[in-house]
Amino acid sequence: MRLRNKKWAGPWLEAHADLVINQQTATDLKGKWETVFPVAQPIQIEVGTGKGRFIIGMAKKYPNINFIGMEIQEAAVAVAGRMADEDEAALPNLKFIYGDGAGVDTYFEKGEVSKVFLNFSDPWPKSRHESRRLTYKSFLAGYQAILPDGGELEFKTDNRGLFEYSLYSFNQFGMNFLPDGISLDLHADADKMIDNVETEYEEKFSELGFPIYKFVGSFK
Amino acid sequence: MRLRNKKWAGPWLEAHADLVINQQTATDLKGKWETVFPVAQPIQIEVGTGKGRFIIGMAKKYPNINFIGMEIQEAAVAVAGRMADEDEAALPNLKFIYGDGAGVDTYFEKGEVSKVFLNFSDPWPKSRHESRRLTYKSFLAGYQAILPDGGELEFKTDNRGLFEYSLYSFNQFGMNFLPDGISLDLHADADKMIDNVETEYEEKFSELGFPIYKFVGSFK
Ligand SMILES: C[S@@+](CC[C@H](N)C(=O)[O-])C[C@H]1O[C@@H](n2cnc3c(N)ncnc32)[C@H](O)[C@@H]1O
Ligand SMILES: C[S@@+](CC[C@H](N)C(=O)[O-])C[C@H]1O[C@@H](n2cnc3c(N)ncnc32)[C@H](O)[C@@H]1O
Repeated sequence: MRLRNKKWAGPWLEAHADLVINQQTATDLKGKWETVFPVAQPIQIEVGTGKGRFIIGMAKKYPNINFIGMEIQEAAVAVAGRMADEDEAALPNLKFIYGDGAGVDTYFEKGEVSKVFLNFSDPWPKSRHESRRLTYKSFLAGYQAILPDGGELEFKTDNRGLFEYSLYSFNQFGMNFLPDGISLDLHADADKMIDNVETEYEEKFSELGFPIYKFVGSFK
Repeated sequence: MRLRNKKWAGPWLEAHADLVINQQTATDLKGKWETVFPVAQPIQIEVGTGKGRFIIGMAKKYPNINFIGMEIQEAAVAVAGRMADEDEAALPNLKFIYGDGAGVDTYFEKGEVSKVFLNFSDPWPKSRHESRRLTYKSFLAGYQAILPDGGELEFKTDNRGLFEYSLYSFNQFGMNFLPDGISLDLHADADKMIDNVETEYEEKFSELGFPIYKFVGSFK
């Protein structure tokens, strides 16, 4: 997803540097993320948060968890930040990082994050772009580096090619990453939908009748 | 799939004991399967062959491979045997075993089979029947015991629950079983369809518009 640049984004982000944290600050916060939230509680992150609908929904639903949405595109992270800022609910348990998921282990210490979410990640269908897919082995190694032993990764997508690739990549990770749950048509699984928080893309593609794929696994 | 019993099945099977081999004979043939085929060439088996459409199609398409269809139901294996016997093509490279896939390692030596196929296996949706699913860990261990290192398992199904379970089970098998290819909608994958040989169930369910799932993996 490429958003058009937004003129207001740069100034807005500068004025809200405590809500949307830049890469430099994020690097300095490694091991100290507790300090940016009013309450010390588990931290869960989404990599590729887009316009933030999922992570805002999660922050509302689970006040006892701290959430961080990571996003590499300025226009998207600015929209997400603004949505959170302008929401009628105060969301003290939500922050964003304007940064690259490839760098998660430069931002977080091992065990500092208790769960990682990937939602409708860019598919990068050409094989020469394999290493940009958020389920490529180097990314998996990054998530493993910041999660505690047994820490979970949750991944949803409508993109069949990306999900096939990701199953492949998860398998290749071998005993270091084992599945806890797999759904090949999430919206048809009533009991898996009870706790489901929708993302922008999820709403769009499930309405078009595409199956939504989901994989939950835990790192050793 | 439960077929009605067929009165002719018992006598027909007795009269064609060289085409449809019973469990006792199959056990005696362990390590000597070469002797039942006119030409010594690689052997591939299908577990749960049903009425045999797939394995007959494979035997026609690949005369340089010997095929064995295994089937636990008398009525089904008799229909399969008869279809093969009455086919206009002579199929010297095709045999059946009227037996249980749970016993593959009592019938075959390590490396005696070069590939295993599972097609539209019974889903056994209740969790107390998990151990009957042909992708349960004890079955995987059986296939591993008869395949050479690097030997492949190919699995197709329309059943979402069974495929989800199987992905889970394959993953749990860890580095002992790694994926070579995954398709979540085989009939939409033009290049994966080039070599596809349809089974009875595959025709039925793909015509109804269900996606056909496929997993190819190789044992260490
Ligand atoms: C297709 S959008 C999905 C947005 C949202 N998660 C949803 O489900 O609606 C993928 C997002 O991931 C972001 N992204 C891609 N690669 C990234 C990376 N390496 N680090 C952080 N964000 C990334 C993109 O900029 C884009 O906003
Ligand atoms: C649903 S049918 C599918 C038939 C065929 N493979 C197809 O794709 O059309 C599954 C078949 O597997 C057979 N089967 C189930 N468990 C078996 C086992 N343990 N060993 C051998 N065959 C088995 C059943 O009797 C049935 O004929």
